[in-house]
Amino acid sequence: MASSAIRIDGTAFAKSTREAVSEKIKSIQAKFPRFQPQLAVIQAGERPDSSTYIRMKSKASEEVGIKFQHITLPAEATVDEIVEKVKTLNDNENISGILVQLPLGPHITPDGERTVTESVSPHKDVDGFHAYNIGHLSSRACDPLFAACTPTAVMRLLESTGVPLAGANAVVLGRSDIVGNPVAAMLRHKDATVTQCHSRTKNLEQIVKGADVLVAAIGKAEFVKGSWIKPGAVVIDVGINYVPDETKKSGNRLVGDVEFEGAAAVASHITPVPGGVGPVTVAMLMENTLVSAERLFEQSRERKIK
Amino acid sequence: MASSAIRIDGTAFAKSTREAVSEKIKSIQAKFPRFQPQLAVIQAGERPDSSTYIRMKSKASEEVGIKFQHITLPAEATVDEIVEKVKTLNDNENISGILVQLPLGPHITPDGERTVTESVSPHKDVDGFHAYNIGHLSSRACDPLFAACTPTAVMRLLESTGVPLAGANAVVLGRSDIVGNPVAAMLRHKDATVTQCHSRTKNLEQIVKGADVLVAAIGKAEFVKGSWIKPGAVVIDVGINYVPDETKKSGNRLVGDVEFEGAAAVASHITPVPGGVGPVTVAMLMENTLVSAERLFEQSRERKIK
Ligand SMILES: NC(=O)C1=CN([C@@H]2O[C@H](COP(=O)(O)OP(=O)(O)OC[C@H]3O[C@@H](n4cnc5c(N)ncnc54)[C@H](OP(=O)(O)O)[C@@H]3O)[C@@H](O)[C@H]2O)C=CC1
Ligand SMILES: NC(=O)C1=CN([C@@H]2O[C@H](COP(=O)(O)OP(=O)(O)OC[C@H]3O[C@@H](n4cnc5c(N)ncnc54)[C@H](OP(=O)(O)O)[C@@H]3O)[C@@H](O)[C@H]2O)C=CC1
Repeated sequence: MASSAIRIDGTAFAKSTREAVSEKIKSIQAKFPRFQPQLAVIQAGERPDSSTYIRMKSKASEEVGIKFQHITLPAEATVDEIVEKVKTLNDNENISGILVQLPLGPHITPDGERTVTESVSPHKDVDGFHAYNIGHLSSRACDPLFAACTPTAVMRLLESTGVPLAGANAVVLGRSDIVGNPVAAMLRHKDATVTQCHSRTKNLEQIVKGADVLVAAIGKAEFVKGSWIKPGAVVIDVGINYVPDETKKSGNRLVGDVEFEGAAAVASHITPVPGGVGPVTVAMLMENTLVSAERLFEQSRERKIK
Repeated sequence: MASSAIRIDGTAFAKSTREAVSEKIKSIQAKFPRFQPQLAVIQAGERPDSSTYIRMKSKASEEVGIKFQHITLPAEATVDEIVEKVKTLNDNENISGILVQLPLGPHITPDGERTVTESVSPHKDVDGFHAYNIGHLSSRACDPLFAACTPTAVMRLLESTGVPLAGANAVVLGRSDIVGNPVAAMLRHKDATVTQCHSRTKNLEQIVKGADVLVAAIGKAEFVKGSWIKPGAVVIDVGINYVPDETKKSGNRLVGDVEFEGAAAVASHITPVPGGVGPVTVAMLMENTLVSAERLFEQSRERKIK
């Protein structure tokens, strides 16, 4: 089967987004030398996957000219200790964005995690995880201070294809707060008719077969078969799954939630894994941090004028 | 065509809910005579429909033993004036719940309306309209301090049928913040597979035909035809529409968004209009106010013990 779909190049999209962010920062700094976006990331413990993600964020920040502050706390840090750190950052005028790298340690309950997430000022919540921002995103107006980075990346890549979303049948696989739910809200806001599926969904294959737009975010390697894809559909694969592969030095290989080859044979556009949503997610964090820095800078200037 | 569906009796459901609220209040007061739920409603101007709704809320409050405070402001009241009033109520320990009757006057922009809605403390937001509460409702955990009354009424009536929601194909018509969006989130939380439709949806009839559960909230008289209903489906009709009817003294008659007779012939359960969702909505407001009063009472006792 020949692949006929256009491969959506997330790596290139992310690069041009980072370049735009970088230029915008420089152009503001040319006028206001004091302007300096700064992102603070709190990490409790040293989970290797978290450390990898933080490294990616730090690298992207450096590239675009965002100052990066990596705050490490011991793995045993309590909710109160993390919240206290967050509050210091909320109050620090130089910090434009704050994120607490999740997951926290196993001693932190979901309620505790929520307390931490909501201790971040909604005005510095560049991850878009605060209930206040989720509420605005989920509302009809769909205009939070910040929208979460991965769903925003999904929408940007979708829009980059030029395929109309209004009236399209969109199917979202997954209902997490990080991906599935916000993507569903964003697609609804773009006038798609959204069907949201999850592990309790029956007749998933049938539903996927009706999708003009498919967003897969379930975390199951190549779960969606190529034969399920509607000819001409746009497929955004958010999944990040490692499968054993003896031909690789590491002994494994990264795949998405969709069978790439089979899907690419029928879809009109498809994101690869890796090189699809992943890099764009980090680029969206850069954008959010810049937007926040601009907003806070503007506010502080207004305060000074008054 | 004979009607075969079970008619879901919203009026009876509402009555028994009000009775339960009333008994709960009495039983708490037997132990703590100081306990007194109180609902404050702010009305700007004198729209007759708003006045009718407020009268219904006042009547229900009186019936269950909730003190009711109706605060009237002039139609021209500004956002700042309304917010100031709200803040006084936020700070008033005797007030358990606050609602601002919408819509406000035409001089108030959507942004202004939002400012008013969000000036209500999320802890007294018995309407469930604050972004913070919408955010928690829309999240996977789906546990706001308060959920909006109409969608909660929809879910209670659905659950009263005993029809399993997990894995059911649920179709929601409408995406307002008051009905469509929160109902979609609640159905998702109950493990239904939710498809949400709106005015830009194509092939609506086809989508409705696949619905095991249909919630119609579009505000178009008898828009959904009986022939669209899947045999055995549960139909919740939220619509409130007046159509001309010369046989009535008022010259018009109330109908829902669904053609009742045709739908009742094939559905397994259906809500009538009037007598379906409407009365239960007001009963849910009573429940929310009671829950709030209990929570605030508990907190004030804890503060006093400390
Ligand atoms: N590219 C990027 O930047 C990012 C990628 N990801 C990747 O996206 C994927 C999803 O992440 P996340 O949302 O956090 O994962 P979660 O585990 O939080 O959620 C997975 C969702 O998929 C649903 N699901 C699981 N199995 C099935 C099934 N067989 N059929 C239908 N639905 C199913 C679950 O349903 P239920 O709710 O019923 O349990 C759940 O809603 C992962 O691979 C993750 O690594 C995540 C974030 C960022
Ligand atoms: N029983 C009760 O207690 C309550 C009853 N209601 C009633 O419920 C109904 C809906 O109220 P509300 O949500 O506030 O109304 P809104 O007008 O805010 O929203 C109506 C929704 O229906 C959609 N819609 C309109 N026409 C069509 C169509 N032809 N096909 C598909 N979708 C369509 C709109 O789509 P789009 O977004 O594209 O414009 C919109 O999302 C009204 O009749 C209202 O009176 C409301 C609240 C409480």
